[in-house]
Amino acid sequence: MTIKRTAFFISDGTGITSEALGVSLLNRFEDIAFDKETLPYVDSVEKAHEVVEKINIAARIDDSRPLVFDTVVDDAIRKVIATSDSFMIDVFAAFLGPLQRELNEQPSTKVGRTRITESTHYDKRIEAINYALENDDGARTKYYDQADVILIGVSRSGKTPACLYLAMQYGIKAANYPLTEEDIEDQKLPASIKGFREKLFGLTIEPDRLALIRNERKPNSRYASMKQCNHEVEEVELMYRRERIAYTNTTHYSVEEIATRVMVKSGLQRRC
Amino acid sequence: MTIKRTAFFISDGTGITSEALGVSLLNRFEDIAFDKETLPYVDSVEKAHEVVEKINIAARIDDSRPLVFDTVVDDAIRKVIATSDSFMIDVFAAFLGPLQRELNEQPSTKVGRTRITESTHYDKRIEAINYALENDDGARTKYYDQADVILIGVSRSGKTPACLYLAMQYGIKAANYPLTEEDIEDQKLPASIKGFREKLFGLTIEPDRLALIRNERKPNSRYASMKQCNHEVEEVELMYRRERIAYTNTTHYSVEEIATRVMVKSGLQRRC
Repeated sequence: MTIKRTAFFISDGTGITSEALGVSLLNRFEDIAFDKETLPYVDSVEKAHEVVEKINIAARIDDSRPLVFDTVVDDAIRKVIATSDSFMIDVFAAFLGPLQRELNEQPSTKVGRTRITESTHYDKRIEAINYALENDDGARTKYYDQADVILIGVSRSGKTPACLYLAMQYGIKAANYPLTEEDIEDQKLPASIKGFREKLFGLTIEPDRLALIRNERKPNSRYASMKQCNHEVEEVELMYRRERIAYTNTTHYSVEEIATRVMVKSGLQRRC
Repeated sequence: MTIKRTAFFISDGTGITSEALGVSLLNRFEDIAFDKETLPYVDSVEKAHEVVEKINIAARIDDSRPLVFDTVVDDAIRKVIATSDSFMIDVFAAFLGPLQRELNEQPSTKVGRTRITESTHYDKRIEAINYALENDDGARTKYYDQADVILIGVSRSGKTPACLYLAMQYGIKAANYPLTEEDIEDQKLPASIKGFREKLFGLTIEPDRLALIRNERKPNSRYASMKQCNHEVEEVELMYRRERIAYTNTTHYSVEEIATRVMVKSGLQRRC
């Protein structure tokens, strides 16, 4: 029998940190099915009372107390949440005390200011997002000199999402160029990218997964056939190795993992 | 005198969680300047030894021990990191014990499996990213029936990055439609969006920030003038209120905060 528990990720901001931490902890308990809910912007005592009600309802339905992962800055709000019928993981409380002693400074208690939104930081990301959009899918190659990295790979190997994530998370200007059948047959780097060899990073993907993705796009086409996918992937991987282009396989990874692998393997430093 | 400390965010995965948590904790200590470095994919004892060396060099340079935020799953790797000359915040160790007692289950120790990359989860996001790209900037309006939300706003108010983030983080299909000068002069909802009133969400921005952004795009143009920006923003906010369209101001927020506000204010549920 699978046990079911409810988990809440509560924050006075977006809740993204609280959720990411909570999920990674809960994933370690594989025999339990968790109903997960993120509650962002709990930034007043009133909202905290509503949250308590929500938690207590879940406790009654489940007949066991929900888990609460909380990254709320304000003490008064946290104290209200603590009155709920829950098992509470108070993330900041756990670490702020030790950090305060180590740093010999009182932590500030400004609510919701946990992420400093510096204008230059924001601008860097927007600039990088615009760059990714404008230099997507080989649409424009004349600004490759401005790229931090140029992702290459066969059609549908995951280049566009990886470029967007590189922009959004790291402020990296990532262009991408699709390796066409002609490029592959030629067995050499296409003219528009060969001058940027040091910026190239290859993506590859398992042929059966590629066929599945392509079939959604163009069902029963030659383009989506196993034969064609096998051929393209094989040739492209040969090209990467022959041209000594670093590459990674995207099949089993999330967008953030692919982007982070590109960062690490190509030695890029974040720009924001 | 500003004190300088070095902080490392160490993970066997992307390090994104460890970094987000560490940064939000460090932001609470406003008098200290932190040199931050994220070290992802520390997934072997050998890499852990390299990390120790890195930490110890920073300790000698700073003449004070670095802070280490670590979300490594494997005990052996963590033990190596713990031999460094650092103040270590061991995130998993702090919470796994209490969780284990509460859930009455031994946590799994599979390295790097903290994020389960389910294929459906990935597909949802990719589908949403493709939707955002294909329905960006009013390029195509005939698929608005498939949208979870349609962001509207004047040119350069931050619609595109918000749509992409909604897709990437929440699997939400977000289209966007730019309100042109003609739309604004007409003082009514444009024909292509008025049938989707319940999906509309407005973005607005402070006029001086808008003028700054537009000036980068088209310096000294009428489009970028304070007068024009003032006018457009004023009229668009009037329209939102008159048409009872929920809206948010993007000026002081990061992309993730804008996206999360859209989620909360429009009552959207994540799709992945």
